[in-house]
Amino acid sequence: MRVVDLIRRKRDSSELTSEEIQQLVAAYTRGDIPDYQMSAWLMAVVIRGMSRREIAALTEAMLHSGSVLDLSALPGKKVDKHSTGGVGDKTSLVVGPLVAAGGVKVPMISGRGLGHTGGTLDKLESIPGFNVNLSLAEFRRVLETCGCALIGQTAEIAPADKKIYALRDVTGTVESPALICASIMSKKLAEGIDALVLDVKTGSGAFMKNIEDAANLAGLLVETGKSMGKNVVALITDMNQPVGRTAGNAMEVAECIDLLNGRGPEDLLELCLDLAAWMFYLGERVKTVEAGKQLSVELITSGKAKEKFREIVIQQGGDASVIDDPSRLVRARQKLDVISPSSGFVAETQCEQLGMASVALGGGREKKEDKIDPAVGLEFHKRIGDAVQRGEPLCTLHYNASARLEDARHLAETAYRIEPEKPKNSSPLIHRVIGASRR
Amino acid sequence: MRVVDLIRRKRDSSELTSEEIQQLVAAYTRGDIPDYQMSAWLMAVVIRGMSRREIAALTEAMLHSGSVLDLSALPGKKVDKHSTGGVGDKTSLVVGPLVAAGGVKVPMISGRGLGHTGGTLDKLESIPGFNVNLSLAEFRRVLETCGCALIGQTAEIAPADKKIYALRDVTGTVESPALICASIMSKKLAEGIDALVLDVKTGSGAFMKNIEDAANLAGLLVETGKSMGKNVVALITDMNQPVGRTAGNAMEVAECIDLLNGRGPEDLLELCLDLAAWMFYLGERVKTVEAGKQLSVELITSGKAKEKFREIVIQQGGDASVIDDPSRLVRARQKLDVISPSSGFVAETQCEQLGMASVALGGGREKKEDKIDPAVGLEFHKRIGDAVQRGEPLCTLHYNASARLEDARHLAETAYRIEPEKPKNSSPLIHRVIGASRR
Repeated sequence: MRVVDLIRRKRDSSELTSEEIQQLVAAYTRGDIPDYQMSAWLMAVVIRGMSRREIAALTEAMLHSGSVLDLSALPGKKVDKHSTGGVGDKTSLVVGPLVAAGGVKVPMISGRGLGHTGGTLDKLESIPGFNVNLSLAEFRRVLETCGCALIGQTAEIAPADKKIYALRDVTGTVESPALICASIMSKKLAEGIDALVLDVKTGSGAFMKNIEDAANLAGLLVETGKSMGKNVVALITDMNQPVGRTAGNAMEVAECIDLLNGRGPEDLLELCLDLAAWMFYLGERVKTVEAGKQLSVELITSGKAKEKFREIVIQQGGDASVIDDPSRLVRARQKLDVISPSSGFVAETQCEQLGMASVALGGGREKKEDKIDPAVGLEFHKRIGDAVQRGEPLCTLHYNASARLEDARHLAETAYRIEPEKPKNSSPLIHRVIGASRR
Repeated sequence: MRVVDLIRRKRDSSELTSEEIQQLVAAYTRGDIPDYQMSAWLMAVVIRGMSRREIAALTEAMLHSGSVLDLSALPGKKVDKHSTGGVGDKTSLVVGPLVAAGGVKVPMISGRGLGHTGGTLDKLESIPGFNVNLSLAEFRRVLETCGCALIGQTAEIAPADKKIYALRDVTGTVESPALICASIMSKKLAEGIDALVLDVKTGSGAFMKNIEDAANLAGLLVETGKSMGKNVVALITDMNQPVGRTAGNAMEVAECIDLLNGRGPEDLLELCLDLAAWMFYLGERVKTVEAGKQLSVELITSGKAKEKFREIVIQQGGDASVIDDPSRLVRARQKLDVISPSSGFVAETQCEQLGMASVALGGGREKKEDKIDPAVGLEFHKRIGDAVQRGEPLCTLHYNASARLEDARHLAETAYRIEPEKPKNSSPLIHRVIGASRR
């Protein structure tokens, strides 16, 4: 294999063989191919694209660059959920315990927040003592004990993805459905799952701003997963405004506990019920998605989902007392209301800006090395379509340091468009379901 | 300037500002931008292309990354010639002295052979003692004394090009008219010339296999040069077979001495006369190109061109006795004829293969670090359209080491297509002249 030839062929829109892709990924992961050759190849991939076969080969190569868990000794189906990232998107903390409470195992390896989006690991770490850095052996033990474990990517899982992702981040080669698909699926398939429910976000707070791009990515993800023998469904969900009432790590944990106590915001509840229902369905726990939804409601109402969450927190070393008293979670010292400049209705939100406001307060990262402040964030009072009076708060900033408060305030203030008339159409929460067939 | 933004914008087909291009090139040359970002940007340029304005900005940025000679204190016009590279293309060794003998100054900074093509510097170095590594001060002195100096790219000339070219070579980003244009013109314009004659090769032995690609590159080169105030003409010349009767460093020097003695092969003579004629014309030494050709013939016939060559060799430390006795040049110890398998006519040659045969014998480089053997090469007996008998030699391999002799023989044998009928059309030597206007 001459690397320059592979680069040139992809540059000239040729299809590479699966073996060539495998060799390229393996050699790069070993350090035998320098970054400057890989980045040229990645750019050619971004512009020229990849065939479905190439994407499957890339996914497989990245998957097998590290350990692939074999959970076949554990009885029952293992099903995970993955979101492409949004603002206030805290469903993992709910559906993990909820689905495990219903008897389907959830081996969940999550990420951290990057850019305007939050990350499950950062949220979990706002629970004192909660350890997301389990070894794969500990991960398996918690999964056996509780039916669900929530950890971060270990060095053993898809090291090729780790290395390639870091390079893409600094070479303008992130925005490629082929590369995004291989990155997501290589990590998820390493978990040893039987099925996967994908939450592909679309809208002003998502990486995919329009539905067609989201549907294209969802199609790639579903097909790649199925080509590797997994049952995969993708829900295309709305991200034109934050999910639920908060964005910010500890605030989101508190909101999830409220939901598990039956007091969750409507949109978050609906999204969690839908995702959990599909997980139960693909996990063959129920015969219809509707039955999965009913089961999910029962598991929340009965408190079983909350008790499962408690079990997981304890097993992963966290202080479970926060579940009974969320006020024990860390809180920001100061608040500032963002006020509506006029009376009318919320017509639109620049959802990415709201995420960036949280980052500006210290709740997220601009660079991978940044430390986050788990206490800060945004509390949302108004959703699209809501009536608002001039002077009424649209959202509240919870902050500790005032250094970038003005940035955050400006971002939040300019994120809302207020119109005199109530907007006619509201986006559905679930736009489309792709790959909806149980094998 | 955020480098990732520039990469992303070029990836998405946007035009960059001249200032952005300038900053990018300057930062990369300083070492402030890593190779892996530059190679991603270069790949985006190869695929998306560049506007004429962007190409001019890139050329200017690369030109001003180093020293730009100011030869305005030297009386008269300074004109150079540059070839895009071919097999047996030895015209620089002839037209440099020839044009200087006619009173137009020729400050010529040349390259080494790479891939299947030869390089002027390697040929000159087969003259014992000839020093191509002059400082810019010495270059100027030789130019003042002889009217022509023949050197290699110094560290002071276009260092950005040197660094970018090395990266392009290993990242599949060579084949871009925009990048080729900026690379050539940044070096040539640094020579302090008033005008430039370009020899853009096309055909089976050229980088540009078809005339339209060659014409496109020629147009870019001419326009970029003119936009920077230089008078530039491009001759699109045929490279479907080697130029002259030899390819190989010392052998080509001997052939040039033959030509300066009035015994050169017809095609090489014609090409040299045309190139020199245009140089005289752009150098305002003659009123018409035709007059330039007549002047060139006179300078050869009178021996003045040969005497000028002697002067240059002496000034640059070479052993001028080879001019009177070319048999003093290094010679290969062994010969092997490549025989025609049938009787008929030479219909076609795979000229690049003939160049690669010379490389296989050790006459060229596959990698920049390779050492060359100045003695080896190919001697051509038959040209396209020539009659040939079965068993008659098509060419002769001159070699020292037998290690890759079989490779070379195979390449040469399969490079000729023999047909029973004489081919009807022969390619003209000069296909087209682009930019033919004296300002």
